[in-house]
Amino acid sequence: MNKITILIHCKDRPNIIASVTNFIAEKGGNIVYIDQHVDREQNIFFMRLESEFFTESFSTEDFKIAFKTALANKFEMKWRIYSSEAKPKMALFVSKYDHCLYDLLGRYNSGELNLEIPFIISNHLDLKSIAESFKIAFYHVPVTKETKEDAENKQLELLEKYEIDFIVLARYMQIVSAKLINKYNNKIINIHHSFLPAFIGAKPYHSAYKRGVKIIGATSHYVTEELDAGPIIEQDVTRVTHAHAIEDLIAKGRDLEKIVLANAVKLHANRKVMVFNNKTVIFS
Amino acid sequence: MNKITILIHCKDRPNIIASVTNFIAEKGGNIVYIDQHVDREQNIFFMRLESEFFTESFSTEDFKIAFKTALANKFEMKWRIYSSEAKPKMALFVSKYDHCLYDLLGRYNSGELNLEIPFIISNHLDLKSIAESFKIAFYHVPVTKETKEDAENKQLELLEKYEIDFIVLARYMQIVSAKLINKYNNKIINIHHSFLPAFIGAKPYHSAYKRGVKIIGATSHYVTEELDAGPIIEQDVTRVTHAHAIEDLIAKGRDLEKIVLANAVKLHANRKVMVFNNKTVIFS
Amino acid sequence: MNKITILIHCKDRPNIIASVTNFIAEKGGNIVYIDQHVDREQNIFFMRLESEFFTESFSTEDFKIAFKTALANKFEMKWRIYSSEAKPKMALFVSKYDHCLYDLLGRYNSGELNLEIPFIISNHLDLKSIAESFKIAFYHVPVTKETKEDAENKQLELLEKYEIDFIVLARYMQIVSAKLINKYNNKIINIHHSFLPAFIGAKPYHSAYKRGVKIIGATSHYVTEELDAGPIIEQDVTRVTHAHAIEDLIAKGRDLEKIVLANAVKLHANRKVMVFNNKTVIFS
Amino acid sequence: MNKITILIHCKDRPNIIASVTNFIAEKGGNIVYIDQHVDREQNIFFMRLESEFFTESFSTEDFKIAFKTALANKFEMKWRIYSSEAKPKMALFVSKYDHCLYDLLGRYNSGELNLEIPFIISNHLDLKSIAESFKIAFYHVPVTKETKEDAENKQLELLEKYEIDFIVLARYMQIVSAKLINKYNNKIINIHHSFLPAFIGAKPYHSAYKRGVKIIGATSHYVTEELDAGPIIEQDVTRVTHAHAIEDLIAKGRDLEKIVLANAVKLHANRKVMVFNNKTVIFS
Repeated sequence: MNKITILIHCKDRPNIIASVTNFIAEKGGNIVYIDQHVDREQNIFFMRLESEFFTESFSTEDFKIAFKTALANKFEMKWRIYSSEAKPKMALFVSKYDHCLYDLLGRYNSGELNLEIPFIISNHLDLKSIAESFKIAFYHVPVTKETKEDAENKQLELLEKYEIDFIVLARYMQIVSAKLINKYNNKIINIHHSFLPAFIGAKPYHSAYKRGVKIIGATSHYVTEELDAGPIIEQDVTRVTHAHAIEDLIAKGRDLEKIVLANAVKLHANRKVMVFNNKTVIFS
Repeated sequence: MNKITILIHCKDRPNIIASVTNFIAEKGGNIVYIDQHVDREQNIFFMRLESEFFTESFSTEDFKIAFKTALANKFEMKWRIYSSEAKPKMALFVSKYDHCLYDLLGRYNSGELNLEIPFIISNHLDLKSIAESFKIAFYHVPVTKETKEDAENKQLELLEKYEIDFIVLARYMQIVSAKLINKYNNKIINIHHSFLPAFIGAKPYHSAYKRGVKIIGATSHYVTEELDAGPIIEQDVTRVTHAHAIEDLIAKGRDLEKIVLANAVKLHANRKVMVFNNKTVIFS
Repeated sequence: MNKITILIHCKDRPNIIASVTNFIAEKGGNIVYIDQHVDREQNIFFMRLESEFFTESFSTEDFKIAFKTALANKFEMKWRIYSSEAKPKMALFVSKYDHCLYDLLGRYNSGELNLEIPFIISNHLDLKSIAESFKIAFYHVPVTKETKEDAENKQLELLEKYEIDFIVLARYMQIVSAKLINKYNNKIINIHHSFLPAFIGAKPYHSAYKRGVKIIGATSHYVTEELDAGPIIEQDVTRVTHAHAIEDLIAKGRDLEKIVLANAVKLHANRKVMVFNNKTVIFS
Repeated sequence: MNKITILIHCKDRPNIIASVTNFIAEKGGNIVYIDQHVDREQNIFFMRLESEFFTESFSTEDFKIAFKTALANKFEMKWRIYSSEAKPKMALFVSKYDHCLYDLLGRYNSGELNLEIPFIISNHLDLKSIAESFKIAFYHVPVTKETKEDAENKQLELLEKYEIDFIVLARYMQIVSAKLINKYNNKIINIHHSFLPAFIGAKPYHSAYKRGVKIIGATSHYVTEELDAGPIIEQDVTRVTHAHAIEDLIAKGRDLEKIVLANAVKLHANRKVMVFNNKTVIFS
């Protein structure tokens, strides 16, 4: 049995759903999941389908070609089709904070994440031993003002060599270059330790403390060239009081960051996220 | 333009989605919403569709007949089809507590609820003036051990006379009879002031206080013959501490009850709830 | 029996707690509640006490004088002492939105709020009938660019005549003048329909929709001259998805606004809020 | 400087607070934290204080003796006094699930937990390598019906040898004996994977799935002889839908279990929990 996931978006118009489901039925597929959304402001149609094919002769590549000819061109669709066998490859970028790294590797180890982690890149050596204890390749790529471009080239080389599908910045404390962002468009996931768009930039817990908010948050988003302004994938919050010092906010925030980032990674890896107009559509 | 909502459930098997979407396309409909769920344990398929028809000759009744012949019989579907023009009629049963009544009537007044409220029934006179201030008919149907059967007949008479679609027990403090439950199967919505299945029955806040829980809840569910055991539509919770006395739990709980009941009413009135095997499927 | 509430803040130094509790014991009082907080960054001590006095000769005024002489001067305290008999008087300012008004008046009616509402002011006539149905005086004070100053004088006159203790802007859509703010410093409570400091200013739900956030919020704060930048009293949030249109955010937000404002009003009326350095200390 | 924490409970009566704060002042202490609670139903007074002493001659043991003579006997207090230097020693009991173990050891490693973990006991060998990677002693104490008593004696021996203060059952899948429970009364912390008192006993996620709840939870409580009925320390919940299969509930629940257990451990280790009448008072 072959199972594929189809993601589509295009200008909304009548009969898209019937046309697609019909096409799949003709190809011998059985739809096991369908969800759709229409952005009425932009008049854009989004759909996610999962379909099973039981004929031995089924080929995902052939299906893609047929889909393109019969449907994608006609409806001027942006589309992606994935075989469920192909696990996405994720690169982890870290610096010195270990909580998100521990959390993701713990989930990875227990089989919770439907992906592969070929390697970890860090600009510091602090977390090398964690990578080793989980038996994952660790590349130390230091970044200084002078070496920034070299470092990026080294990163790109590794990303290409391992055929990485997406990148997770697990509290990687460096600004990522436009070159990398453009190459991995909507494929670099960051965790920001505030409830965006509040407290953009550095030291959000300090700003939250200063403002006296009663709730703090964390936000996972795709990286775009504008700092902390990319499409939001997932957010969560927790209550705080006047009695919490900055270090308490940081400690409470760590738990948020871990869960928010892990959820964003799962959504992305399971191809449940579509991006349009700097916003995400998240299929459940 | 005509708009209809279709709810279906049946044994899961291949091609249901394609068959239904195809049928709608043939009838000239454009699907504007589709969501589906498969209960893999029970092997049951659920689907909710909204479709628009632009031909002047369209008739919901004709569509129903064609749907039944072409699809429902073939797939042995349980199905319901609603015209979006038909607002459901809701009867409110209350006793002495006013918070859920105020809340629902406030929402009704502001146009938030897509339904009609032809009348309010109460076994007491306490809330009559609220009904009057909102200009809704109020029927006083007292219930005592001796008059219980008469009272029910009076209730049934009113429900039929006004062609009521569903009933909301807004902190109605009486056990509803099997006769009413059977006649309005999965059409009587109750609000229970606990996080079910914890604290079934009377005085749940007292029980929650005694047990020392750190979170209290409220649950809206369809009424079945077994007390507080019907299909759950909506739940919500809030934190409490040792410092909250029983009256504090009651006060905090009131806010939960209002919101949980209002959400359940909206889901039901918008035909977003399906029931199977004493559980709900809630379409978003 | 007399019961008083004491609120204190001063520079932190040793023995404040022992000195205060001792003083109360000497005056024959029994402390039934004590809570304290130290802002270690600013080195400021905050305390809230409730004490009961059973001697018939007890006078809150005499106690205040003795407290001032014996303690307040010595420790350079800012302090407030309230008799629990004195219910604070609250003025409601509204415009056209009715949900917060309905909610507060419903709670007021059911005895949930420990305060008095002598009157409602509005710049429009839309909500007059609600005020009447709850039998509360309603003053129509229209505000235009030309009449703004006259309107404020009329408002101030009413506030003084009724000896108002604090003002609640229940979705009052006008900017309040510096004159009013200075006279009622940390005594004007506003509800802002966003999770501050995100989405300051007008149309926050539109901004939240545009940014694609996954959680929306509401914030109740004291009004200061800088827009939406005053000390935060209470915040709450709720989840949203890409499927929610702006009107859905508005509808979901209404429930947040009601509860957040009601909680802030209760905290203020029960003298549980202290303000320092544009932040609140909230005693539970 | 010496810092101590004092926990008191006794029958409520006038002047306890003043007496205690006075006593501390006389001994040269400066109170830096005070919180209290009165259970009005049971008429019990609870208080937690932190006090600093700057005299070099200060001795916690001498203070305890003086406290007992001057106050504890007079007010018939139950009391505990801790020096803030003494970190509590915690034993971890695990079986095969690794998520709570990973989580607690990660926090321990990063310095988030104010305690020591001398050893881990397990009835299986599965998690031995995790203990080793964190460099913590691991004792394999298998438990079968026949060896249960021997196993307990072995456990007790280890607990005594290492002078363990409290025990954490981090998804330890065995019923703990009355002998252990009595010896470590209110000192054995369990994590139960449901929102107690709902779904007591085995397989709560299966029961939650079957009941169709819309929210699942986790509960950390002290172990008593009655299964899952001990004093609740901490609870948390998360939303689920009809679309979540049992394995999804288990995965979502793991995140709850980790955080709820970690919070309960922190509260206990920081001496912020008091138990009375099978309920907890949690000082913030």
